Amino acid sequence: MLTPDFSRGLVTAVVQDADNGEVLMLAYMNEEAWELTIKTGYAHYYSRSRRKLWKKGEESGHTQRVVEIRLDCDRDAVLLRVEQVGGACHKGYRSCFYRDHGGNIVGEKVFEPEEKYGRQ
Amino acid sequence: MLTPDFSRGLVTAVVQDADNGEVLMLAYMNEEAWELTIKTGYAHYYSRSRRKLWKKGEESGHTQRVVEIRLDCDRDAVLLRVEQVGGACHKGYRSCFYRDHGGNIVGEKVFEPEEKYGRQ
Repeated sequence: MLTPDFSRGLVTAVVQDADNGEVLMLAYMNEEAWELTIKTGYAHYYSRSRRKLWKKGEESGHTQRVVEIRLDCDRDAVLLRVEQVGGACHKGYRSCFYRDHGGNIVGEKVFEPEEKYGRQ
Repeated sequence: MLTPDFSRGLVTAVVQDADNGEVLMLAYMNEEAWELTIKTGYAHYYSRSRRKLWKKGEESGHTQRVVEIRLDCDRDAVLLRVEQVGGACHKGYRSCFYRDHGGNIVGEKVFEPEEKYGRQ
């Protein structure tokens, strides 16, 4: 098995919808997150701001079942191809990349964050 | 115009083939790389190892014409949708994510690195 290179710290994970190829989000993995992802088949990450491991969707139910994992040439980035339940973005969109640089909304809104997480 | 948030350092760029949605590579941008990308329409990045700005394809000819730029919810990552000439990966593959975690080659080889860059 090919494993990411954690010797220089966290590994970046690009998350892509396995069905239509949409790039959903970017996250980070430490070794524990990687191992849990492999073991459970569901995406786990390491939150840099909260400094803890989390399972995507543990609060929202918007889990990511991993269909395929790819590694990049120097093994410091991984590509997770997933089945996304609901939306990947806490703002209510299917993808975190829901705006173009002109400021236009180009992504699909799939839920209301206030209803999901309560007023923030 | 929406601009990335450079206040916490470099911004991560996910690069995707605009035609077929393949994730090609991951790179980093500083403010200068962002501005040159916008101005020229071709992807520019900041190399963390070489500590310098570079234009993708400046040596290899494997340039990336930018078709669309998206920003993520907290503006510390951008998604470049590009027209990729040749291969994005210096190993000769169309995408840097050419292996799955089982170690299988899943990406398309499009050039021989030794012919392109000389023996390394």
